[in-house]
Amino acid sequence: MSVPASQGSDWKTALHAPRAVAVIGASSNPQKIGGRTLANLREGGFEGQVYPVNPAGGEMAGWQAYPSLTDVPVPPDMAIIAVPGAEAVEAAIRDCAAASVKTCVVFSAGFRESGEQGHAHEARLVREARSLGLRILGPNSQGSLCARSGLVASFATTFQEYAIEDGPVAIISQSGAMSSVIYGLLREKGIGVRYVHATGNESDISSADLLDVVADDPDISAVLLYLESISDPEKLAAAARKARAAGQLILCVKAGASASGQKAAQSHTGALASDDKVVDAFLSRVGICRVDNLRGLVDIVPLALQRREAGVGGLVLVSNSGAACVLGADLCERLNVPLARLSEATKQTLDRIVPPNGNTDNPIDVTPALLTDPTMLERILGSVAADPAVDSILLNLPGSVRGYDFPRFSRDIERFRAQSGALTLVVTPTSGARVEMASSGAAVFEHDSDALQALSVLRRAQRLPSSPAQQVELEAPKLSGSGFLDEAESLKILERIGIPTVAHRLCSSVEEARSAWEIWGGAVVVKGCSSRFPHKSEYGLVELGCRDAGAVSAAFERITAQMKAHGEHDPRAIVATFSRMRAEAFVGARWDDAFGAVVVVGEGGKYTEARQDVVTLSWPFGQDEVLNALKGLRVASIWAGVRGEPALDLAPLAEIAVRIGSLVDRMQGAIVSIDANPVGLGAPGEACIVLDALVEVAG
Amino acid sequence: MSVPASQGSDWKTALHAPRAVAVIGASSNPQKIGGRTLANLREGGFEGQVYPVNPAGGEMAGWQAYPSLTDVPVPPDMAIIAVPGAEAVEAAIRDCAAASVKTCVVFSAGFRESGEQGHAHEARLVREARSLGLRILGPNSQGSLCARSGLVASFATTFQEYAIEDGPVAIISQSGAMSSVIYGLLREKGIGVRYVHATGNESDISSADLLDVVADDPDISAVLLYLESISDPEKLAAAARKARAAGQLILCVKAGASASGQKAAQSHTGALASDDKVVDAFLSRVGICRVDNLRGLVDIVPLALQRREAGVGGLVLVSNSGAACVLGADLCERLNVPLARLSEATKQTLDRIVPPNGNTDNPIDVTPALLTDPTMLERILGSVAADPAVDSILLNLPGSVRGYDFPRFSRDIERFRAQSGALTLVVTPTSGARVEMASSGAAVFEHDSDALQALSVLRRAQRLPSSPAQQVELEAPKLSGSGFLDEAESLKILERIGIPTVAHRLCSSVEEARSAWEIWGGAVVVKGCSSRFPHKSEYGLVELGCRDAGAVSAAFERITAQMKAHGEHDPRAIVATFSRMRAEAFVGARWDDAFGAVVVVGEGGKYTEARQDVVTLSWPFGQDEVLNALKGLRVASIWAGVRGEPALDLAPLAEIAVRIGSLVDRMQGAIVSIDANPVGLGAPGEACIVLDALVEVAG
Repeated sequence: MSVPASQGSDWKTALHAPRAVAVIGASSNPQKIGGRTLANLREGGFEGQVYPVNPAGGEMAGWQAYPSLTDVPVPPDMAIIAVPGAEAVEAAIRDCAAASVKTCVVFSAGFRESGEQGHAHEARLVREARSLGLRILGPNSQGSLCARSGLVASFATTFQEYAIEDGPVAIISQSGAMSSVIYGLLREKGIGVRYVHATGNESDISSADLLDVVADDPDISAVLLYLESISDPEKLAAAARKARAAGQLILCVKAGASASGQKAAQSHTGALASDDKVVDAFLSRVGICRVDNLRGLVDIVPLALQRREAGVGGLVLVSNSGAACVLGADLCERLNVPLARLSEATKQTLDRIVPPNGNTDNPIDVTPALLTDPTMLERILGSVAADPAVDSILLNLPGSVRGYDFPRFSRDIERFRAQSGALTLVVTPTSGARVEMASSGAAVFEHDSDALQALSVLRRAQRLPSSPAQQVELEAPKLSGSGFLDEAESLKILERIGIPTVAHRLCSSVEEARSAWEIWGGAVVVKGCSSRFPHKSEYGLVELGCRDAGAVSAAFERITAQMKAHGEHDPRAIVATFSRMRAEAFVGARWDDAFGAVVVVGEGGKYTEARQDVVTLSWPFGQDEVLNALKGLRVASIWAGVRGEPALDLAPLAEIAVRIGSLVDRMQGAIVSIDANPVGLGAPGEACIVLDALVEVAG
Repeated sequence: MSVPASQGSDWKTALHAPRAVAVIGASSNPQKIGGRTLANLREGGFEGQVYPVNPAGGEMAGWQAYPSLTDVPVPPDMAIIAVPGAEAVEAAIRDCAAASVKTCVVFSAGFRESGEQGHAHEARLVREARSLGLRILGPNSQGSLCARSGLVASFATTFQEYAIEDGPVAIISQSGAMSSVIYGLLREKGIGVRYVHATGNESDISSADLLDVVADDPDISAVLLYLESISDPEKLAAAARKARAAGQLILCVKAGASASGQKAAQSHTGALASDDKVVDAFLSRVGICRVDNLRGLVDIVPLALQRREAGVGGLVLVSNSGAACVLGADLCERLNVPLARLSEATKQTLDRIVPPNGNTDNPIDVTPALLTDPTMLERILGSVAADPAVDSILLNLPGSVRGYDFPRFSRDIERFRAQSGALTLVVTPTSGARVEMASSGAAVFEHDSDALQALSVLRRAQRLPSSPAQQVELEAPKLSGSGFLDEAESLKILERIGIPTVAHRLCSSVEEARSAWEIWGGAVVVKGCSSRFPHKSEYGLVELGCRDAGAVSAAFERITAQMKAHGEHDPRAIVATFSRMRAEAFVGARWDDAFGAVVVVGEGGKYTEARQDVVTLSWPFGQDEVLNALKGLRVASIWAGVRGEPALDLAPLAEIAVRIGSLVDRMQGAIVSIDANPVGLGAPGEACIVLDALVEVAG
């Protein structure tokens, strides 16, 4: 029987809304994976055909079971494979292809995650599936859920514990457990979820593929990712851009940030751990907002679903407790959430509502008078709604439902939300009060710290780019040799791409060194130049501040003798002008096989490594992105000018970072790394030049 | 009628277990403060006598009301004053004294918190009460609760919403709202609370007084403080030491950390905002563990109540989800919670239990096999219990109650807790599972991040000192003048207390300057010395690196001429040896009227202010405390020796900090501030000396 080639989007329709699903390895025992899957399909309310496949036949979960796939009356477009053993799975895949199945969800484990042999099994499985025109989710997948069609193609009991409800959220997870955990946490908040995809080993269909599919769904507002590895950053970037362009917010927990976490991740999925800072830089560049933990991931969703922009103004804090106002203001400062500057008109209106022992200068302390006069809140919200400086409001209402009129407050907030474009958060520590406030439409929290953390992350997420940075095109330089280039060659490469470097001459003799000095006069530096000594100063091959021809000769003689003693037959040295710069920065770059060009910029000089004051950028990026990132350096306040020193001009430094990034990208791995350190900084109008460089070429 | 003087602990007994309570300003309207108070006294189950006092008389909340206090049949030892207006409160206080009341809880507002006039009213109230032998909690207090006697002397409805239950926790709060919020949060966790004290304006009985009282109760394990101001640090320190010595854990939210928070706090209670870093240093010195927010405050309590020491070993992480293991390891690294290094014996035992696709090298990934074999957990816990490297365990069990046998797990954990001395934390995102796990006795959390944050704080809290640092005794130097002393005088003061300073001479003439240079030869520094120019370099009064008599003369002439031009009649200059030190530190100190001697130590030199790399210490402290704090500096890694440089000897720097702190303490405000910057650091065996100093004397 000949098999048709996989057609465009067929596998996607088959994944989300199949006409018929076969369950290969179905069981009538609800404790077994094949049995739990049938129960999920039954309870989820899937309306398509379900065909349990089991040699025993009979009836299972109310459906007729068939001994084999060939016996099934209508060709299913999706098959769930829940049989143990690689061979059995392969056989099932072949059966599926013969039956025109488009998408297989493979629960079975024992593949890549279980070692070398499993790896080989998995590779064969994918090859076979590809050649047969089939797509695979898994193996080692917990399955997939689509609430719109009621399809629960998963063995997780979580989907029985929390009723399926369609909603504007998608979950895509490389861990089955985490997909259910995130689902359960959202459902406990009353939030509906349309998609839950656990990708397992991602042998074929990946998180990036699924993000791309979800991006096409206009009903989805937020996508939650749990990732342990990013195998194809370019594909993920493209999918993320598409989702961002469609107005979706993408939030991500990327595990394996720590050394021990990476160790644990390896024993878990064999995922390749990447340098965590690179992952950080990559995710924010492509518009994916990374959060630290699951609370951060789920707490932000009720806010994201309000689909309102924070960041155009500030937050107004309202509470009946002065202490809550103080704590809230503390938290806002710590979390970098700006408080709105209310207009004089608003303050005057508030002054007429709030008792004199309260406060109307944001935070607004309405005092416990709210207890005896519950109408106050409505009036306060009315005046705040009219103030354009307010983009978000947090009502912190401690107090028991026995004392305060929470049902009234909930109605007031609902009305406020209809009038105002502000994001609305409510904090109240009493569970009874939270139940009352749920109908307000606000995002309701137990703790102000959680609420403000969520708001802070949302502000960050909404600021992330939704379009790619502009590219710089450079001509690729010709490279000779391999490994570390010497300083002269390294500087030449930077010069060719338009980076200003220190004036210097490469000298083979004392005479050449002396005449180099004569060009500039004044103080020069003499440095041994050889690809054998990339770290010159460790070998004593640097002489600073030579001020006359004699000193230059002596330095050249000493340094070249030193180089000869270390085995260099034809030693040469660079004579360079000795420039006192105002400060030292550095720009480093490396080629990452997964993420491409990675650039770091920071405080340079002797203590670069020790100070660790750097920012990491993932290519592509422009000058603006670099300048923005540099604000995060600790040394930024010094570079901004202190103790009467002028502010330094950082634009040329940013330009150097862009050009170096572009070069490393252009060479696609032919340049392994570039180190420009120090880069001398100047005030506006002064020079910004690379004083030393080291380029490493692939060999 | 003559009134007996206040006797020792009488007011304490009257506060916690009065024989009879009068409610002055009682009301039969449960919406009013005086009515809610009666309802609280009724519902709390207080068994003593309650006498509502109201001119109307009659019956209120089931008790006979009396027109005035003199009509009450038995003299009450506690009175609650809920009448409006300062005059009425004063009158009530006088009535109370006449009736032998020991302690008054004053709800009435309109005192210090409402401005100048209220401040005067409050001062008079306290004077009057003191002279009459009465103690006051408040005014502007929400009241007080003692679960042991069932006394709810408060108008907060929270105490009706959450039933009173005695337990090992005390809450002391300067905010009424926060006292109820913290109470409610603990009660929602099922934790009993013995004391809730809202101190209001603290006109008489303060948080420190109440901490002192609570420290005497052997049943209390944890004290939770909410503070906005610390009016008497010494008293608080003494009470904290007593509580710590009794094995109590003290946790504190101190509000007003931010500028806007301080502004909000002022409008709230008029509390004097202190420099937040000083508060930090003070609290940790006296053994009070500061936490950032209310979640941090309450989340730690279930752990604290296990009364087990963390920090003697490490944490073991156990999960049925590999992803939870990875995330947990990430969190541990971020929160500085060490993972236990399991013994080979433990790992071998675990290898026999855990399936091969799991992991036994902490974190322990037991895999979803736990679903089909729930007996695994008991065996795993048994092997972990035997490992001495484990001081705490976190079981992260995602999964639904439909799939996993949570009742069994709960029993397993209960048994483990009986065998092991380890702190036990359980994380499970499913609310149904958390209900099942409550009976295990473990601290149960929804999120691993919250659980590990709590564990991290507990580890910090348990390490805080429970005894004061050893004191250094110095002889007080005689001070002359006021304001800034000149450099020579400043250095002399440091020398007198045994601090090594740079070799220098104060010179009044060129001849003296030249002969000073002749003593040392080599390079010297010439610096103008005058109390009029504390910031010499701004006036160009410093000349570095003078290498011969001529240069010294020229520098002296130039500098003294400059000083004359600025109005100094008799200009003098210091000639000091020019020492190239390996690195520059600084030690600063100031006298704080509230907190006493405060010392800061950090990276010194030109960019001290810009780098902000400092630690703050609150006197008293010893060398060890300084050395420990210095580990928190960013520059610590550089001082530890990088790029072939030797590690620097920080003990002499710590000694300088101790001596300067001791001096500022000894002088009790006569020295306003000391600035030793730079302090030149050396390697072991090399000098560590103060190169420049500036002492400011009270004037």
